Amino acid sequence: MPMDLTAVIGGIALVDHHVHGALRETVGRPEFEGMLTESDRPVPPWMTQMDSQLGFALRRHCAPLLGLEPSASAGDYWAARSARDPEELARLFLRASGTGHWLVETGYKGDMLLGPAGMAAAGGAEAREIVRLESLLEEVAPGATAAGLRDAFRAALRARCAEPGVAGLKSVVAYRHGFGFDPAPPSHAEVAGAAGRWLRRIAAGAAPRVTAPALLRMALWEAVETGLPLQLHAGYGDPDIELHRCDPLLLTGWLRAVEPTGTAVLLLHCYPYHRGAGYLAQAFPHVYFDAGLAINHTGARSAAVVAETLELAPFAKILYSSDAWGPPELHYLGALLWRRGMTRALTAWVEEGEWTAADAARVATMIGRDNAARVYGLDPAG
Amino acid sequence: MPMDLTAVIGGIALVDHHVHGALRETVGRPEFEGMLTESDRPVPPWMTQMDSQLGFALRRHCAPLLGLEPSASAGDYWAARSARDPEELARLFLRASGTGHWLVETGYKGDMLLGPAGMAAAGGAEAREIVRLESLLEEVAPGATAAGLRDAFRAALRARCAEPGVAGLKSVVAYRHGFGFDPAPPSHAEVAGAAGRWLRRIAAGAAPRVTAPALLRMALWEAVETGLPLQLHAGYGDPDIELHRCDPLLLTGWLRAVEPTGTAVLLLHCYPYHRGAGYLAQAFPHVYFDAGLAINHTGARSAAVVAETLELAPFAKILYSSDAWGPPELHYLGALLWRRGMTRALTAWVEEGEWTAADAARVATMIGRDNAARVYGLDPAG
Amino acid sequence: MPMDLTAVIGGIALVDHHVHGALRETVGRPEFEGMLTESDRPVPPWMTQMDSQLGFALRRHCAPLLGLEPSASAGDYWAARSARDPEELARLFLRASGTGHWLVETGYKGDMLLGPAGMAAAGGAEAREIVRLESLLEEVAPGATAAGLRDAFRAALRARCAEPGVAGLKSVVAYRHGFGFDPAPPSHAEVAGAAGRWLRRIAAGAAPRVTAPALLRMALWEAVETGLPLQLHAGYGDPDIELHRCDPLLLTGWLRAVEPTGTAVLLLHCYPYHRGAGYLAQAFPHVYFDAGLAINHTGARSAAVVAETLELAPFAKILYSSDAWGPPELHYLGALLWRRGMTRALTAWVEEGEWTAADAARVATMIGRDNAARVYGLDPAG
Repeated sequence: MPMDLTAVIGGIALVDHHVHGALRETVGRPEFEGMLTESDRPVPPWMTQMDSQLGFALRRHCAPLLGLEPSASAGDYWAARSARDPEELARLFLRASGTGHWLVETGYKGDMLLGPAGMAAAGGAEAREIVRLESLLEEVAPGATAAGLRDAFRAALRARCAEPGVAGLKSVVAYRHGFGFDPAPPSHAEVAGAAGRWLRRIAAGAAPRVTAPALLRMALWEAVETGLPLQLHAGYGDPDIELHRCDPLLLTGWLRAVEPTGTAVLLLHCYPYHRGAGYLAQAFPHVYFDAGLAINHTGARSAAVVAETLELAPFAKILYSSDAWGPPELHYLGALLWRRGMTRALTAWVEEGEWTAADAARVATMIGRDNAARVYGLDPAG
Repeated sequence: MPMDLTAVIGGIALVDHHVHGALRETVGRPEFEGMLTESDRPVPPWMTQMDSQLGFALRRHCAPLLGLEPSASAGDYWAARSARDPEELARLFLRASGTGHWLVETGYKGDMLLGPAGMAAAGGAEAREIVRLESLLEEVAPGATAAGLRDAFRAALRARCAEPGVAGLKSVVAYRHGFGFDPAPPSHAEVAGAAGRWLRRIAAGAAPRVTAPALLRMALWEAVETGLPLQLHAGYGDPDIELHRCDPLLLTGWLRAVEPTGTAVLLLHCYPYHRGAGYLAQAFPHVYFDAGLAINHTGARSAAVVAETLELAPFAKILYSSDAWGPPELHYLGALLWRRGMTRALTAWVEEGEWTAADAARVATMIGRDNAARVYGLDPAG
Repeated sequence: MPMDLTAVIGGIALVDHHVHGALRETVGRPEFEGMLTESDRPVPPWMTQMDSQLGFALRRHCAPLLGLEPSASAGDYWAARSARDPEELARLFLRASGTGHWLVETGYKGDMLLGPAGMAAAGGAEAREIVRLESLLEEVAPGATAAGLRDAFRAALRARCAEPGVAGLKSVVAYRHGFGFDPAPPSHAEVAGAAGRWLRRIAAGAAPRVTAPALLRMALWEAVETGLPLQLHAGYGDPDIELHRCDPLLLTGWLRAVEPTGTAVLLLHCYPYHRGAGYLAQAFPHVYFDAGLAINHTGARSAAVVAETLELAPFAKILYSSDAWGPPELHYLGALLWRRGMTRALTAWVEEGEWTAADAARVATMIGRDNAARVYGLDPAG
């Protein structure tokens, strides 16, 4: 009874446990190319972002869905894409991804994107929301006092968490400060002091962007106390970060500090520190990780990256996410490349006699769907 | 005259230069699963540690030695294992590993495990001892004065080193402090001060666990002065560590400081920093490394890890170890997976015409046996 | 119309954008072996540096050019090599490399080596010069005053940059201090203070080796102001460095600080931090990288390293260099192993249907030749 792993892995109704919405607006080619890189700089005139692993993967795998040959030229791809409206593109690519659940992080430029309900409708799937802590704190701050910010944030957070569609929380402390923060909860005095300085800057007209470590730590600890799964951006991201400060191993002390709460901590992306993330997922029962964003951006190389995630972590501690943002091609490609990488790695082990096909199918289903369903309390059947 | 590399590498009488004893006692399934992870936390009820690369490798390769099919179920494996007593299991798996010399580190929970003599008897092989510095220091401390601790430790260390069965020393400074310590030898005042504080804590009833950097450095420098090979845990290990503080590159200054003594320093495990360890082994004549523990725990992926160890280091500077502790399956699997990884990498290079088969056989024998025999002064013929 | 990628990639007239001269003198075997490692320590008597990936690659690929069988013994190789004079060896190996442009860094032991003109003549190719900042500063310092060092250096640098053969600059701040320096330009007072201390040491007889961070930073900022492409040694190198201090990610703040100048910054080698370098090359429009030295030194494993360089960076931001120094075998091997690694990775993607052969040929030509030609303003046709 030979098992077709390609079919089995191709058929998993994925839980994409960290994703953003698909574009709801038409974009021009420069904006589109800018969405194929984590860089926020304009693409220089002497190059195109289509000449990258992601660009090549997009031409290869997305072109056929637009009626083109695989690896159609960038120009043909753009023409075919431009002939369709955002709604049609979202519907086409989201459905082709075979995703059963989208857990949609809504904290970054949400106006341009479909929200959870829009994703559910376009994708023909379930969708729930992941709330970004720092965005919520920045909403709350302008109306709060220094002494009252913590309570105001807590109340707002608890209210959000009580909404039926909310499945988890997310922090971008990696972007705002890095992971080299004091693992202990901040004192009330620390929080009030940092809040006072921040609120004065806001009152003076500054955009309410939170960067003070005491406030970021406060938000993390409040999040952990809710008991909802907490996602942390780790590793690879945009030029705001200092990548070496986002090595998830720098979180070790904090992970140890929050372990008694039992709250699940999910490390996102992690590249190029995904092996260290695998260690943390082995060492600590409450720690999980995925390769997220790194899969799309490494294109043909993503199979190698996916294989590297299958080392130290028990298989119950690895998840799938696309971290797609914007072009729905990314929602599709993330799923396709993850399936391709898993199929490649697991098929090789089955062929070598190291794993059974049944084990391979079971592990792929755990990583692609069941682990996330357990952590977030989803019904995997959708 | 085609050479069968699988047979050649399969036939090397390995020197397992860093290993612990096999279990002498019967254990229950939770304890057994706990021995398949470096985590010291209980395995959560919603997962099994058998669902990991190590668990899958164990089912695949150890089941046949118990009369089961390869990749028998975890339940069948456990039943077959439970039907045998520890002595039989040790004899079975140790002998099947094809190991000619065990260098047994005796410093961690030695009561549960076979000692060097027991390993020799069960394994039908030679065995010598590796003395853990911190354990010896913790034995000596309660009977010493602050001013006399260094001399007492030195005397005890020299006595241990003079025992005929002792082949080398080992430090777990990585666990106790990390590698970010002052590379210079500590002054007598520093040692006496730290010793005084430690001995007062012991006198007050604390368990004698040494963590003061001055004392850990003192032990390292005393070790180096003996001239015996000195092993250092580096990289991957249990949740006690902060993995990023165990990057062997952080030892560079100390390696430079001890280089004039000529004492061999052997970096163990090193994952995920094994490429940096390869650099150190190229840069410094007295530095060696292995992938140790990381081979067993990455299972089907270990071939990739083994291949990564074959980059910068001259082939005279790479060693084999299993770092097995407890279940004798680990002593067997470590050897099997190392042989498999070496065979895979070297066969590919021979088939591509990059290496000759004779060179491949020679290098595998250097790494598996001869380098360790030279460093530790063993007779490789056993 | 099947395309032979091996032939296409084999036929690229490479721009070796960071290389040193080939030996102009005869060397003995110990010196020769010492040139096959970045270690500056004598090779210990119980080993030979020929037993390394580089040694094996040299025997495999260079032996046939000396009329020997592939993988001839080290002894036969040495005998054949010794029967030829340096001029013949340089001519033989440089021409076989298929390099169209050599960008020759002249700042390290240049007396033993061919200069740019010698490389051009021996290699039948174009050659231009890369000026090492620290060497120039060390030339200028003995004749300068503390207050005048900056101006004297600037004048000397501008004069060098105005020479028609000069194509770029290079810094070894990684060796002299590491990348953990203040990203801001040093003040004049800082520079004058550090210069005063340094000049007093030189006046007292010390060799003029610059290590003060203020002076190294001054040199970097002066370099950036010239607008010429600036190469930075990063990652793997000799035992002078602390490798973890040469992680290119530690440069993030400085890269951000110099971004407005538009000067191209080229990160060399980067191993084992080449994935982080790929991130920087994606994030910052002015940042490029190569795997340089790491290709030669990983020999049969270099195909894996080359593949790892093809992840995050847009293809317009990756370059080729050999970083060869001394034995012209290294100039040849660097090119051969890069071509082999690229051919291996790209052929696999073409066969899997992920890339088209035309894209593969185009990307290989960008990385091997066109990107460097654009950055350095070379005529790629030679």
